[in-house]
Amino acid sequence: MLTHEELLTTVHDLIDTRDQAGLIAFATEIGSSEWADILPTLDEEQIAYLIDALPGEELPDVLAELDPSHAADILMTMPQTEAADILEAMDPDDATDVIDELPDREAQQILIEMEPDEAAEIRELLAFPPDSAGGLMTPSFVAISPDLRADQAIGALRKISEEVETMYYVYVLDPEEHLLGVLSLYRIVLTRGDTPVRDLMVTDPITIMADADQETAAALLTDHNLLALPVVDHDNRLLGIITQDDIADVLEDEATEDIERLGGSQPLDVPYRRATIALLFRRRIVWLLFLFAAEAYTGTVLRHYSAEQVEVVALGWFIPLLTGTGGNIGSQVTTTLVRAMAVGEVRLRDVRWVLGKELAVGIGLGVVMAGVAFARSQLLHAGTDVGYVVAITVALICVWSATVAAVLPLLLRKLRVDPAVVSAPLITTLVDGTGLVIYFTIAKWMLNL
Amino acid sequence: MLTHEELLTTVHDLIDTRDQAGLIAFATEIGSSEWADILPTLDEEQIAYLIDALPGEELPDVLAELDPSHAADILMTMPQTEAADILEAMDPDDATDVIDELPDREAQQILIEMEPDEAAEIRELLAFPPDSAGGLMTPSFVAISPDLRADQAIGALRKISEEVETMYYVYVLDPEEHLLGVLSLYRIVLTRGDTPVRDLMVTDPITIMADADQETAAALLTDHNLLALPVVDHDNRLLGIITQDDIADVLEDEATEDIERLGGSQPLDVPYRRATIALLFRRRIVWLLFLFAAEAYTGTVLRHYSAEQVEVVALGWFIPLLTGTGGNIGSQVTTTLVRAMAVGEVRLRDVRWVLGKELAVGIGLGVVMAGVAFARSQLLHAGTDVGYVVAITVALICVWSATVAAVLPLLLRKLRVDPAVVSAPLITTLVDGTGLVIYFTIAKWMLNL
Repeated sequence: MLTHEELLTTVHDLIDTRDQAGLIAFATEIGSSEWADILPTLDEEQIAYLIDALPGEELPDVLAELDPSHAADILMTMPQTEAADILEAMDPDDATDVIDELPDREAQQILIEMEPDEAAEIRELLAFPPDSAGGLMTPSFVAISPDLRADQAIGALRKISEEVETMYYVYVLDPEEHLLGVLSLYRIVLTRGDTPVRDLMVTDPITIMADADQETAAALLTDHNLLALPVVDHDNRLLGIITQDDIADVLEDEATEDIERLGGSQPLDVPYRRATIALLFRRRIVWLLFLFAAEAYTGTVLRHYSAEQVEVVALGWFIPLLTGTGGNIGSQVTTTLVRAMAVGEVRLRDVRWVLGKELAVGIGLGVVMAGVAFARSQLLHAGTDVGYVVAITVALICVWSATVAAVLPLLLRKLRVDPAVVSAPLITTLVDGTGLVIYFTIAKWMLNL
Repeated sequence: MLTHEELLTTVHDLIDTRDQAGLIAFATEIGSSEWADILPTLDEEQIAYLIDALPGEELPDVLAELDPSHAADILMTMPQTEAADILEAMDPDDATDVIDELPDREAQQILIEMEPDEAAEIRELLAFPPDSAGGLMTPSFVAISPDLRADQAIGALRKISEEVETMYYVYVLDPEEHLLGVLSLYRIVLTRGDTPVRDLMVTDPITIMADADQETAAALLTDHNLLALPVVDHDNRLLGIITQDDIADVLEDEATEDIERLGGSQPLDVPYRRATIALLFRRRIVWLLFLFAAEAYTGTVLRHYSAEQVEVVALGWFIPLLTGTGGNIGSQVTTTLVRAMAVGEVRLRDVRWVLGKELAVGIGLGVVMAGVAFARSQLLHAGTDVGYVVAITVALICVWSATVAAVLPLLLRKLRVDPAVVSAPLITTLVDGTGLVIYFTIAKWMLNL
């Protein structure tokens, strides 16, 4: 077996040297999991060559692992019958994600070219938003009647073993497709052949509504260590299942979104490689303008204290140092706390102990930073008086930043806003101006300005 | 079934009202997945009461879902025979994690109290670091001989179905325990009973060395959609397996570490709730002091330009606005890029197109922000000349921050340092001082100072 690095090097070499024969031979030997590894490292031009070079039967594996919007772009360049054949060969849930990204007219025309059964399955899946449980599910599950015996069930499974994505769980349905129970494959196997399925199944299994959020589905699967989660409608009819492999993607996407928000930008919603310059610009400019507006009052504050700055020029030297330290502590607190809330460790009711803990840490950090800041002020020959002002200010800013950064995410949760919008830049901005007010208030008072 | 919120409310009420009978009745009805939901929301005092109130047979489920260091603290308060009984009832991989956190003397004494077989299993597991594949694995897997027939294999499985964590995969070993192949349960079931196991198994399965990193194990399991990954020694002898449920924890921990680093602090390595004030202080002070030292030269820069600031006081009003905007753009770029590198989308060789893209976005943002900054300067009546200086500076700082933030993570990867150390606070700090130099250079030149 090739290592990860060998795999990447091999396929990059084959593409860059335009070795079509080698590429075809290589493609027949690897599967969708290797494509999932390889594709994110290729640029658009390399992918275009790859699609061109590979024979039709390899394309479904490749397109299923691309970002759906990218796969849709590629299908648009092909004859519609060819696009329809490729989509038929993909799992219905993956094919649906791609068709969702096609312009409506093209999507309809390609669906008409497809086998009626497969087109009908996809039309049903298209009804659900892509980030809902229904949008994540696949309709290929294994269903049996409660009246079979275990050995009959095994016989039935043998017939369909090629068609379905996972058969570790078998779902027991009544004739109207209501979900009666679920059965793990090994319970069927490891029991006496004449036991009725009805006696073996777990009744009242964990399910999710088709219109529920995909994050809820991910949490249920993970928390309960399930291999697959049944998706039902409001009458408890089984519509499809969500499997583990779908969830890894959801978890990765959610973590990426949180990280992008914490960095002070709107989530890209597409892979970085696929993000155009215009998209990156749009996602960033909104927060930049908002933060600029929020920061603008620092100008007003500084103008207000112009006289003091002229009188004691050395006061100005420490402004970036003071605001910087406040921003750094705020960023530390808010990222740790937002993450603790995302993984369910901290809830609204915890506001008191969180605040207590962060205050205590903030005081500790403030004392140390005050000492360091005093030392620095003396190195710059700012005078002992200014040194005391800087030291006291830095201590207060540490405590103040920790407090704001600890309270704000919890407050937003209370207002039902995603706490991840409290980004590091937002906290930095909020404590910059308030920190300056603290600084000049103390300076005026201690230096008799 | 209770919803997530009902579950939490119920158990919090039972604990807070000290309703021991209710708590015991409740505990017998829920399993480890519910405990995994509940425990992170309880504080130490509530957990202490819970452990006290529950009968011994419920404790293994509870302790297995606590952070290992917390579980170890609780075991230390119990008689050693009781602690040994609880550990015996846990899965060996979970028990090992807990014993790893006990002081050596106590660990040895408890191991002596345990059944010799189980103690031996744990002693073997203790040899591997907790964050290696060996530290993550469980030794309870299903192994069969290649010479069995399919129906004999099913008979063998029936006997051991209670003891093992997962039996969806069956491992085929020779008498020296070398791994010959792997077989999914449904291949055994869905074939003719007289087929030899040797003909059914997949030879050359995906494996991982016991001393490999746990992140590599997580990537293999996820990329290849495996339910379990066999862990082998250097002679290809099967030591244990890593299952999906272990991986969700690894992925969550790794994302948490990255987020904490990006926020400008060293990773806590324990849940936020378990982090003491002293630990939070230690993890944060290191970066704060480093960032303070890095920011300190802004004081030198400002002192150097004291004359200019006295001559044109209005220049000072825009310092936080300029450094703030530079820091915000840097934070946006670096978080997006570090994440794209973490999920494998951006590699070293991509430095050119990353830089090209980020430069283009930076120029676009710079133009817009220059317009806004000019408008703001006129609102503050800073004069048109100062307005031009501020506008040109903000445009240059946008481009400069984007460049530094795009290059630095890739440079660190090249130096084999984790790019996640390029936190939002670090980028902010780096562009603060350089931004000031740009500002005063332009001011001196345009205002003839």
